[in-house]
Amino acid sequence: MHGTETRKLPGFVGGTIDRVDHIRTNPALLASAFVDPAARLLLLDGLDPVEADGHLVLEPLAADAQVEDHLLLGIDTGNRPIFARLVADLGPNLVPTPRSRAIADLVPAEEVALYGAARSLVHWHARHPFCSVCGGATAPAKAGWARKCGNCGSEHFPRTDPVVIMLAEHRGRILVGRQHSWAPGRYSALAGFVEPGETIEEAVARELFEEAGVRVRDVRYVMSQPWPFPSSLMIACIGQAEDDALTLDQTEIEDAFWCDADGVRAALAGDPDAPFSAPPPMAVAWHLLDRWLAVAGPTLVPSGASA
Amino acid sequence: MHGTETRKLPGFVGGTIDRVDHIRTNPALLASAFVDPAARLLLLDGLDPVEADGHLVLEPLAADAQVEDHLLLGIDTGNRPIFARLVADLGPNLVPTPRSRAIADLVPAEEVALYGAARSLVHWHARHPFCSVCGGATAPAKAGWARKCGNCGSEHFPRTDPVVIMLAEHRGRILVGRQHSWAPGRYSALAGFVEPGETIEEAVARELFEEAGVRVRDVRYVMSQPWPFPSSLMIACIGQAEDDALTLDQTEIEDAFWCDADGVRAALAGDPDAPFSAPPPMAVAWHLLDRWLAVAGPTLVPSGASA
Repeated sequence: MHGTETRKLPGFVGGTIDRVDHIRTNPALLASAFVDPAARLLLLDGLDPVEADGHLVLEPLAADAQVEDHLLLGIDTGNRPIFARLVADLGPNLVPTPRSRAIADLVPAEEVALYGAARSLVHWHARHPFCSVCGGATAPAKAGWARKCGNCGSEHFPRTDPVVIMLAEHRGRILVGRQHSWAPGRYSALAGFVEPGETIEEAVARELFEEAGVRVRDVRYVMSQPWPFPSSLMIACIGQAEDDALTLDQTEIEDAFWCDADGVRAALAGDPDAPFSAPPPMAVAWHLLDRWLAVAGPTLVPSGASA
Repeated sequence: MHGTETRKLPGFVGGTIDRVDHIRTNPALLASAFVDPAARLLLLDGLDPVEADGHLVLEPLAADAQVEDHLLLGIDTGNRPIFARLVADLGPNLVPTPRSRAIADLVPAEEVALYGAARSLVHWHARHPFCSVCGGATAPAKAGWARKCGNCGSEHFPRTDPVVIMLAEHRGRILVGRQHSWAPGRYSALAGFVEPGETIEEAVARELFEEAGVRVRDVRYVMSQPWPFPSSLMIACIGQAEDDALTLDQTEIEDAFWCDADGVRAALAGDPDAPFSAPPPMAVAWHLLDRWLAVAGPTLVPSGASA
């Protein structure tokens, strides 16, 4: 068991697999990798991970397995080609299960990252049997890193959706909010998809204004995280709010408030008296709050000091 | 004419349109915006911009125009709803023309940004008349910010592909490279798509190793830019190279070399004796080089000083 108390990285970060781009596009090299006795299949149950004894389950490829039905995730640090099986019909259960989230605390970080990549790609293939250009049937190409249309020849590539997730800061406090569907007490950083035609910084400013009525400037990037539900790139930022008035978009946000460093510190520590329940350390929001504390905390009255 | 000598932003950055998310999802508000006498159509010629007298051409909507065939880009600073027309068949000419790039020097920055957003979205619609899940016909939804399948009901959203574009730095020099297809002498920062399952920093490290054999650490984010050919989010970074040995992937990179601050300064100034020809200021690579100079330059021997 890899406890959250020692975790240094958000979930799905820290992959060590070599993605071997030169093999993906070379059918002879791909065929060799597939018949390599060291090759392994990363077992998935639908989109869920399969874990045993603190590791993801890797199996030898079946004798009748066909390379065309597989995705080459890469070559691992033990020099083993690692494949995942592409499934035409995953059924309707494409939303993240508790099991798919819990894996972040059950296996080492590099295996969490491997599962994340596999999940995003297997999901993408299952959603793209047809060509968006002509409606024809598509088939996997480039070792599972593309699909090609058999009718019009269009190539399609796995998508990765950039999402901004951010804190607005105002006079030593940061803004946290909650969605209607979240567990009671849970608050986190606000977030939203980056749209065509805007920068990361412009997306941060737009989302904070849309969701909370807060205008920010001096947006700075903090860190990023791949998030495989289904395939986001979380881009964590902090911006300076012009004032602390809130106008919430109630369709998106149920509630939001400004929290000081003491409150954030208590929330990250899991203190039951904290002003909110923080997301778990697998979420980049936990690390964004932690990073804010590391920078903003020391300039404030320390936790426990008399006010 | 807005000359490059006064440009502070990369092309397509600095949009001022209000994207009015609350109108997109409200058919009554959308219908009102469409019949607003102030509403305007952003004229496009296929995917090319149409410019006159230093501005993009905006026209009143035709009397027989249908809201279903239009994308609401947003409300401009003059309180005008701005639409673009969705075109089912753009023909085969979807690659960027010289005209589509030249617009960055012909109209104000906020209009360049508006064109970029319109181009990415109109292109995306033209490539998605069919549902990737079931092959059924799709139709625009949410004021052109989604498509919905008439057969299986799947919703599809415009894609934005995160791309890392980066400099490796080693002892006061940075790495620039060129692709086979570029004009003679042109070098720039290396770049590549962020893949599912990796962070921005991991993508930077992977691409620099794949393309140039360079290992980097301490990757830091510098700035971002939307790039509408067809719909990328350019994420510009600098990383510290472990050494300066190069192993080029000749399929991707024709040549690459380490350039010092004097050379970069000469290239950005357009000096004909510079060691390379830099990309134009509409490209984020120009700004990345400029930002590197601003930080790295002063610590080195100034240009013109005797060695």
